[in-house]
Amino acid sequence: MTSHPRLTHRIADATLTVTVDGAPFTGREVVVAQRDHRFLFGCTGGDLVPSTGDPNGDDPAVPQDERLASLFLELFNFATLPFYWGWFEPVRGRPETERTLALARWFKERGRLVKGHPLAWHTVTADWLKDLPTDEIAREQVARIKRETTGFAGVVDMWDVVNEVVIMPIFDKYDNGITRLCREMGRIPMVRMLFEAAREGDPSATLLLNDFDMSAAYECLIEGLLEAGVRIDALGLQSHMHQGYWGEEKTLAVIDRFARYGLPIHFTETTIVSGHLMPEDIVDLNDYQIPEWPTTPEGEARQADEIARHYRTLLSHPAVAAATYWGFTDGGWLGAPGGFVRADGTPKPAYDALRSLVKEEWWVPPTTLATDAEGRVRFSGFLGDYEVSAAGRSAVFQLEAAGEVSVAAAL
Amino acid sequence: MTSHPRLTHRIADATLTVTVDGAPFTGREVVVAQRDHRFLFGCTGGDLVPSTGDPNGDDPAVPQDERLASLFLELFNFATLPFYWGWFEPVRGRPETERTLALARWFKERGRLVKGHPLAWHTVTADWLKDLPTDEIAREQVARIKRETTGFAGVVDMWDVVNEVVIMPIFDKYDNGITRLCREMGRIPMVRMLFEAAREGDPSATLLLNDFDMSAAYECLIEGLLEAGVRIDALGLQSHMHQGYWGEEKTLAVIDRFARYGLPIHFTETTIVSGHLMPEDIVDLNDYQIPEWPTTPEGEARQADEIARHYRTLLSHPAVAAATYWGFTDGGWLGAPGGFVRADGTPKPAYDALRSLVKEEWWVPPTTLATDAEGRVRFSGFLGDYEVSAAGRSAVFQLEAAGEVSVAAAL
Repeated sequence: MTSHPRLTHRIADATLTVTVDGAPFTGREVVVAQRDHRFLFGCTGGDLVPSTGDPNGDDPAVPQDERLASLFLELFNFATLPFYWGWFEPVRGRPETERTLALARWFKERGRLVKGHPLAWHTVTADWLKDLPTDEIAREQVARIKRETTGFAGVVDMWDVVNEVVIMPIFDKYDNGITRLCREMGRIPMVRMLFEAAREGDPSATLLLNDFDMSAAYECLIEGLLEAGVRIDALGLQSHMHQGYWGEEKTLAVIDRFARYGLPIHFTETTIVSGHLMPEDIVDLNDYQIPEWPTTPEGEARQADEIARHYRTLLSHPAVAAATYWGFTDGGWLGAPGGFVRADGTPKPAYDALRSLVKEEWWVPPTTLATDAEGRVRFSGFLGDYEVSAAGRSAVFQLEAAGEVSVAAAL
Repeated sequence: MTSHPRLTHRIADATLTVTVDGAPFTGREVVVAQRDHRFLFGCTGGDLVPSTGDPNGDDPAVPQDERLASLFLELFNFATLPFYWGWFEPVRGRPETERTLALARWFKERGRLVKGHPLAWHTVTADWLKDLPTDEIAREQVARIKRETTGFAGVVDMWDVVNEVVIMPIFDKYDNGITRLCREMGRIPMVRMLFEAAREGDPSATLLLNDFDMSAAYECLIEGLLEAGVRIDALGLQSHMHQGYWGEEKTLAVIDRFARYGLPIHFTETTIVSGHLMPEDIVDLNDYQIPEWPTTPEGEARQADEIARHYRTLLSHPAVAAATYWGFTDGGWLGAPGGFVRADGTPKPAYDALRSLVKEEWWVPPTTLATDAEGRVRFSGFLGDYEVSAAGRSAVFQLEAAGEVSVAAAL
């Protein structure tokens, strides 16, 4: 199995040459500080905004709880926002564009990459599709994708184009238009159509295929799509662990299997609960409905440990480029205590555990270094954005490749 | 679900016009009798031949036990013979062609369709492949397929070209050359290569993809192969039921899912035991190794009932064109009591149950009919080969399509 726990594939050993007005800034102290990670540490961003209960209300959907928002921004450089068609356009022709765009802009203005999830899915899809003939469902789905990818271009730069295609055509829990479309078109022609629509809508966006099925079925789907020439930018792997932490061995084995295709791997949906585990015999997690699922002190300690192990594992594999946690606060999907933050707004030990990795162990804090006779300083740091400052001036630079690199900054 | 228990899709309502020397054979009695089924009732044929213990022995591999052979021939019009590479060519360059060819000819001479199983598989494959670089494994695999499909052309008319591709590249129980080849090439390019080699070796052969994985993984694999333009003649579905009979509902649901591709469905490997069931927690059936697995009277009654239900279910779905039972006698794979015949050579109730369907309920015995003024008789019968005889002459004809058909026979 591929695992490099020392994370050397994510660390640059940098020689930074500092100049001022074109001349080497020699024999002086500078302060180097990391500003962002290249790795995408993400989380669902929708729960920063309380539901108004009125999907057509005029409230701009931006975070009101400043403390919650700042906890989020401290930890994450990447936010996934909900684009479930059934919520986004409950009434045909009346999409919820403005509320979602306001929230996306709020993240974008704070330098966060924003992903939309999902553009096509058989669950939480628009109910009104059921009344349409299949060819019209196809036209509506394509139009919807073009509308969102065009309308959010420059704000939402990444999309889960389609969610859970493996089960899509054989999903039998309830009738819906998307399952019918997928069954009639076949998986590959449908995915090709969806990706072409998204690519046309925003040629610069990063487009993902996303699934919870970690079996050979997803491998076979991916292989079929790649053989058919469908261009996929990254593979999304869900990892809802309501029934227990996967552990390092399983996680690395899964990554190895999906890394074979040479595409970046995004862990798109990770949940690790801080309460009791969901019973093992539940197959569809949605079938587990209980009135209350409390967070507990023992559960929170276990969650903190497992989250730290999980992120260490993900970063240890060179193929993983992103990790999105599913549910910043408790009580979201399934009412599970899966958040980094309790229902009362206080952070759990898991929050501190991840923060100590992202902003301490894997982070270059402001560090004073002395330039040599050629204006150079040497330091090692995680790939990402950096700032160097001295004498009241500052400049930004990036560490983009692991190993020995030379970079320059003009103060 | 698709099921037509009355089997009208397999029955012709025939008007047969009989002529003698070009003139209608009017107002006379004729005898109509079915000679064969169009549906392929198959079984593994290798256990008619006792193992010599000497794979390089000179014994021609033809059945010696005449009673066993006639029990087989009474029930089946189709035989699957073993071509496991590890048995067929244990020493590189010394294939077991003659023994296998003798057995195949024995079936062919008795009017039975013969299928070879399999041309490529990661299990029971040639051990010596492990010592080769991957590109040489590919060359050897292609050469092996061309050798067998050419060498057995006209005798073996159907092939399981490749077995269990879903798990092939991620099979991790032991090192083998075929898993390595599949992992390096990818499933679709490898299957394309294998089918092209088989098609080139015998353009008139019927070529199958075969798998035990009935999940969406096999669907995704098939969809990928069809999108990639790989020409597959029939889809093989395994159904080893050592852990219990599937039942009508599951069986029909599986068939429906794989019938979507418009290809004929072959049930390639059915086993239903007449002893205790294998425990449910066994995942790989090969892991269940016990010293003795006896057939029991209660088990035999259950097996007979389930086999009759299983064949009724298969025939009720129009997509199913063949059903091969795995192991004519007890004690084959896993030592399971899965045969139609006990270890002592006596037939079980399941034998009589299937015989009463194939040769009675679904069969037209010699039947005397009177031709009308235009030399016609009318009768209904299962699709297949027929003979009409009168006045010391006889002629053969076929019923090839269900519903009202007109056929002619010249005595």
